[in-house]
Amino acid sequence: MQLGRVVGCVWSSVKNLGLTGQRLLIVQPVKADLSLTGRAIICTDCTGAGSGELIYWVRGKEASFPFTDAEVPSDATIVGIVDELNLGKPRTEEHL
Amino acid sequence: MQLGRVVGCVWSSVKNLGLTGQRLLIVQPVKADLSLTGRAIICTDCTGAGSGELIYWVRGKEASFPFTDAEVPSDATIVGIVDELNLGKPRTEEHL
Amino acid sequence: MQLGRVVGCVWSSVKNLGLTGQRLLIVQPVKADLSLTGRAIICTDCTGAGSGELIYWVRGKEASFPFTDAEVPSDATIVGIVDELNLGKPRTEEHL
Amino acid sequence: MQLGRVVGCVWSSVKNLGLTGQRLLIVQPVKADLSLTGRAIICTDCTGAGSGELIYWVRGKEASFPFTDAEVPSDATIVGIVDELNLGKPRTEEHL
Amino acid sequence: MQLGRVVGCVWSSVKNLGLTGQRLLIVQPVKADLSLTGRAIICTDCTGAGSGELIYWVRGKEASFPFTDAEVPSDATIVGIVDELNLGKPRTEEHL
Repeated sequence: MQLGRVVGCVWSSVKNLGLTGQRLLIVQPVKADLSLTGRAIICTDCTGAGSGELIYWVRGKEASFPFTDAEVPSDATIVGIVDELNLGKPRTEEHL
Repeated sequence: MQLGRVVGCVWSSVKNLGLTGQRLLIVQPVKADLSLTGRAIICTDCTGAGSGELIYWVRGKEASFPFTDAEVPSDATIVGIVDELNLGKPRTEEHL
Repeated sequence: MQLGRVVGCVWSSVKNLGLTGQRLLIVQPVKADLSLTGRAIICTDCTGAGSGELIYWVRGKEASFPFTDAEVPSDATIVGIVDELNLGKPRTEEHL
Repeated sequence: MQLGRVVGCVWSSVKNLGLTGQRLLIVQPVKADLSLTGRAIICTDCTGAGSGELIYWVRGKEASFPFTDAEVPSDATIVGIVDELNLGKPRTEEHL
Repeated sequence: MQLGRVVGCVWSSVKNLGLTGQRLLIVQPVKADLSLTGRAIICTDCTGAGSGELIYWVRGKEASFPFTDAEVPSDATIVGIVDELNLGKPRTEEHL
């Protein structure tokens, strides 16, 4: 899964039926140190995340798992809201 | 899903049977600020999007969901036309 | 789908049984303006494309759709030959 | 599969039911020479890997294989801990 | 599929049961001119490829096709060894 931050949403009246009723949130990917990285994408959501929240999303076929019955044509779904990132001390790279 | 803009189409008489009757649109990916990014790709379409329209497309297995019965060999399908992008104020990156 | 040009082929006697009888073509990805981009990949083919032809290919699970019965372990298949690329005038990026 | 190192974990109370009880580890991708590369991601885990361990993870649909019954919406799962990386002498690039 | 060269292997006693008995080879991706590109990955193998051999591998769901019965959690599998790369003369980029 990837870390990201909810930065907006998309209004879209003309869309595939499978997306009806789905929230379409704009998510900006972030690194573990919360700096921005890569381009914003559009995610469906199954957590109720709000604007500005730190979340993680899943890509590909798994993105439709949370909507198991309906065939939601989504390749990116927010599956969790981050309470806390727990990072160990940065390591030297050499040893196995 | 990814944001993009329809910039053209492909004429192709020799193609897999599963693509017969499908519109093959050329889509230029764009960022949330509508600047261009990455290379143009070819999408099938289930929304009737026209040239110049701002759309969002889905990749991978989900790209064939909108055509559930037929096995359309497509890995990128336009699933919605954007009415409006609603972006919150850009955030400082530090806090969780 | 991605645009590309057939630039060669691979001879391979030791390979997975599922690839027996499949053409293994080397494809150089190109942009919509036909300039080269990214690294060449190996595609199976279901169109009979020849060397130098402009084609489009599909990635992932959909790459095995054209061979529906056999389980061809391919993640990239040429699914069409381009007759013509029809590109609208390049747009200014601002407006929706 | 990709090489990586466990560098932390995520605490997340609001998440998809399918992730209940799953460890959510932060993994920093590394190259074969153990130098860092790319951005950290979040992986589910089926090996009990600890912080600092060198692991390899699998992406996409296969990431849910280890949890075959439950539909775990994960696109990245740690599937092994590295005991030893056995690298041959670097080769000159020309010959086939 | 992608071109690559076998450069080593991984010893791993703690791993998912589905990987038991599988060779875990380290593969360095290469371009069509055999120059190195991108970072090394770990592949399962169904061809018996040896160190230094030029191979091609498949990603994603198709990577588990060669092991059809067992659910091998692999997203990259070597599916063929290259005998010969047959590249046409490099083309000028303009014409269709």
